[in-house]
Amino acid sequence: MSNAVVLLSGGLDSTTILALAKQQFTVHALSFRYGQRHHEELEHARRIAASFGVATHLVTDVDLRAIGGSALTSDIDVPKDRDASTMMSSIPATYVPARNTIFLSFALAYAEVLSAQDIFIGVNALDYSGYPDCRPAYIEAFERMANLATRGGVEGTNPIHIRAPLIAMTKAEIIRLGMSLGVDYSTTTSCYDPDRHGRACGRCDACQLRRKGFADAGVPDPTVYA
Amino acid sequence: MSNAVVLLSGGLDSTTILALAKQQFTVHALSFRYGQRHHEELEHARRIAASFGVATHLVTDVDLRAIGGSALTSDIDVPKDRDASTMMSSIPATYVPARNTIFLSFALAYAEVLSAQDIFIGVNALDYSGYPDCRPAYIEAFERMANLATRGGVEGTNPIHIRAPLIAMTKAEIIRLGMSLGVDYSTTTSCYDPDRHGRACGRCDACQLRRKGFADAGVPDPTVYA
Repeated sequence: MSNAVVLLSGGLDSTTILALAKQQFTVHALSFRYGQRHHEELEHARRIAASFGVATHLVTDVDLRAIGGSALTSDIDVPKDRDASTMMSSIPATYVPARNTIFLSFALAYAEVLSAQDIFIGVNALDYSGYPDCRPAYIEAFERMANLATRGGVEGTNPIHIRAPLIAMTKAEIIRLGMSLGVDYSTTTSCYDPDRHGRACGRCDACQLRRKGFADAGVPDPTVYA
Repeated sequence: MSNAVVLLSGGLDSTTILALAKQQFTVHALSFRYGQRHHEELEHARRIAASFGVATHLVTDVDLRAIGGSALTSDIDVPKDRDASTMMSSIPATYVPARNTIFLSFALAYAEVLSAQDIFIGVNALDYSGYPDCRPAYIEAFERMANLATRGGVEGTNPIHIRAPLIAMTKAEIIRLGMSLGVDYSTTTSCYDPDRHGRACGRCDACQLRRKGFADAGVPDPTVYA
């Protein structure tokens, strides 16, 4: 099997794409210690990577706190109880400037070193918070740029494909897909603002989308809420 | 004056674009501690940023050594005495996978936080080592992607321009431009493999291109060689 790089946050979406990528590729997982408010998600990512038996799991430091500009990397409050039906119409304070671009850039470097042609990212443009760097036009533009940026892209020996298989799926469809692949969602974390015991707040965008996804899928929600 | 982000390595090219950007913008310099073999270049970057009176100078840690794949971030030997006339025809071991993409991605995040529309990068596609991420097609593709990645790009409130004013200039032209802007090139460093006293090797691609640039410009070379 050929190598693929999978961006793994330890959340519901990235865990699902890890399970999907494992069907076809030797998986190299990549996670970031980026100054996020809660470090639980990295612990989850470690356990998930180990449970799926990935070939390597690289956890890289990137200092997004120094740049700031987001509720996830600074002391700005995480928005709660936003109306799910209008969530996509405005970009909230949890948007981290250029985060997916930074994460995909590191994945691109790692892919080039591993001679991997496939980079998996769990972005979703349906049940999401309206982040610009989760939409198909962005993913296509990144892929095009990537093939002009690298030795293997330019020389044609290692063309890069950015794979975003969840981009047009509902959260319920993602959950059903993951369950068919054996994902145990009790090991994943989505909350932007868990309490000190690691329990989900139930009220941020991520919790609301996740909770509705389990309800719509008709599957018991294994999340522990505060 | 509006804000601009300038990628500053402390080398000849990035110092020239810093001087150029200062003519028109309030400059925010951005440098990286990326596991490069020689830390002298960051010291040079700090002194240059201070001497030009930039508004801010952010030095960010990114761990490219963990990813590897380059003579600049691992123990692979730096190539020496390559024939300058054929330098551009093959990508050498000093190529760092996706480095400019990673650096520009951080600059993009910083620009978004500062509401800066202009990002300066000192890439050059004439007197260079054939790196794919120094060519015009790459810069254009990055700019296009950037405007799909960010809140201000998508909403049209803060379109991003990637400015690479040196991209089509010879090294001699760059040196003449910098001198007209008051750059003191004795404060800049280009060598990939300086000795422990910080003296340039004179034989790597960067030294050869720099040395020839001063000769072609008819300007005394202030570099201290080993």
